[in-house]
Amino acid sequence: MLNKVVIYGVGLIGGSFARALKKAGAARHIVGMDRSQDALRRALELGIIDEVGGALPAVLSGADLVLLAAPVAQTERILASILPHLGPDTVITDAGSTKSDVAAAARKALTDKVAQFVPGHPIAGRETNGPEAAIDDLYQGKKAVLTPLPENPAAAVERVAAAWRACGAIIHTLTPEEHDKVFAAVSHLPHLLAYALVDDVARKPHADLLFQYAASGFRDFTRIAGSSPEMWRDISLANQAALLTELDAYLAQLTQIRASLAAGDGAALETTYANAQRARRQWIEAIETAETPQPQDLAE
Amino acid sequence: MLNKVVIYGVGLIGGSFARALKKAGAARHIVGMDRSQDALRRALELGIIDEVGGALPAVLSGADLVLLAAPVAQTERILASILPHLGPDTVITDAGSTKSDVAAAARKALTDKVAQFVPGHPIAGRETNGPEAAIDDLYQGKKAVLTPLPENPAAAVERVAAAWRACGAIIHTLTPEEHDKVFAAVSHLPHLLAYALVDDVARKPHADLLFQYAASGFRDFTRIAGSSPEMWRDISLANQAALLTELDAYLAQLTQIRASLAAGDGAALETTYANAQRARRQWIEAIETAETPQPQDLAE
Repeated sequence: MLNKVVIYGVGLIGGSFARALKKAGAARHIVGMDRSQDALRRALELGIIDEVGGALPAVLSGADLVLLAAPVAQTERILASILPHLGPDTVITDAGSTKSDVAAAARKALTDKVAQFVPGHPIAGRETNGPEAAIDDLYQGKKAVLTPLPENPAAAVERVAAAWRACGAIIHTLTPEEHDKVFAAVSHLPHLLAYALVDDVARKPHADLLFQYAASGFRDFTRIAGSSPEMWRDISLANQAALLTELDAYLAQLTQIRASLAAGDGAALETTYANAQRARRQWIEAIETAETPQPQDLAE
Repeated sequence: MLNKVVIYGVGLIGGSFARALKKAGAARHIVGMDRSQDALRRALELGIIDEVGGALPAVLSGADLVLLAAPVAQTERILASILPHLGPDTVITDAGSTKSDVAAAARKALTDKVAQFVPGHPIAGRETNGPEAAIDDLYQGKKAVLTPLPENPAAAVERVAAAWRACGAIIHTLTPEEHDKVFAAVSHLPHLLAYALVDDVARKPHADLLFQYAASGFRDFTRIAGSSPEMWRDISLANQAALLTELDAYLAQLTQIRASLAAGDGAALETTYANAQRARRQWIEAIETAETPQPQDLAE
């Protein structure tokens, strides 16, 4: 049981963390911090938080766990503001989509207290936002990736892991660099590609005609282009190097497929399409198994 | 009321057409044709068709409407086989995803009887297949695009339109060339891009690790890569010119985004992402309105 949890950002991610901890009986008192006073007021009304945070010394006094669920670009500023009031028994974590930049920001802001910061990334989300979007089962059966720093004591990592497990998440561990390479390929690149396609279609002179005939395939393919442009600008820049590597590999792949198409090489196209279909089918079967909570996950 | 309908291909598309016509009381007798005797037997058992077609003269005798819902590559062969038995009162249509090649195949196979062939494309589908996948509301509220030939008499076009309307579809009309340009942009290119991404990920040495962390965004983005590789090979080749045009535009778009990313130009990235998000939101609002059957559609 955590006595006191402080959550920076009481929207979908932070608010759902708060709701899940409460539902599990894993947190006694939750304090909310947010740039938006309106969001804080609504989070309090909705019972997501117990208290709107005021002066920092009081907010952080006796806190077991601090979650940063604010935009990643604010990480360094928030950590720097926390540092003067950070007690030795408080552990900080975050929920950002990139981890190398967050680790670097934490080192810069917290200096010799960086051991108290355990970077993390819950693999869950929706296109909705704000306290109203927060639900208590957002993380149920989902992965929470922790990317501990060499300085982190095992007990600090375990405190963060236990909180996510209480939310129903399954803990995975990667280095910040591994994390960013993996998510560049399976998340950041697809977002860029979806945004690129919709923008490409929208800027054509006959865009209205095109959108009129776009159907469910287009809808699903571009769903992630409904995400926040500011957030994905920040993620793209924060993970620039890994994203460029993946984008270049994809451009090479498209160039090769273009050559097959131009040559009328049906066998080459079919090989690519069939390999993709087979790999996707295997993956879907694997996640359908993995995302069903297993008895040992529930018992932890 | 159509007295006799012949359906080539009793799977998802043809079988759902049959079921919808029956449900609407719009067809008295439905004859099924298929390369697979097993599919025909199941379609008969499931009540999708009334009769398994045998010798062609009998199959086509007295047919009001013939729907080709077999792979597009078979169009010319099937039409050539129909021609010797084609009565003057029979109208033929198809459900293929490309229309210029189908129109060309029809001209070649039917020669001076091409006026009896009205090319069409219902904009509906699922990843499932076979007679078991056929449902009576697959076309409800969806678009059916007809691409009439200059030779088609108005009555022939109207017979096809009325059948699709009976299935709940909303009729749209384009030329075969317009159709193929539109669907290259909003359907064929997204399929190619999704196949390309999954194949790219699957061929990386650490593919297992990558797939382990792929989540719902990746799942939706790549859903269409679960489609039939043979079918999409055929569509890609059948619509080669228009697809190359769209692919080249997309490659130019990606190259420009790559330059913005490499330069760390957050404002340029955000402009692209925000334009895409805005365009997609407007489109979603528009289709949610359009796909709700309006009273006048139901009354037709």
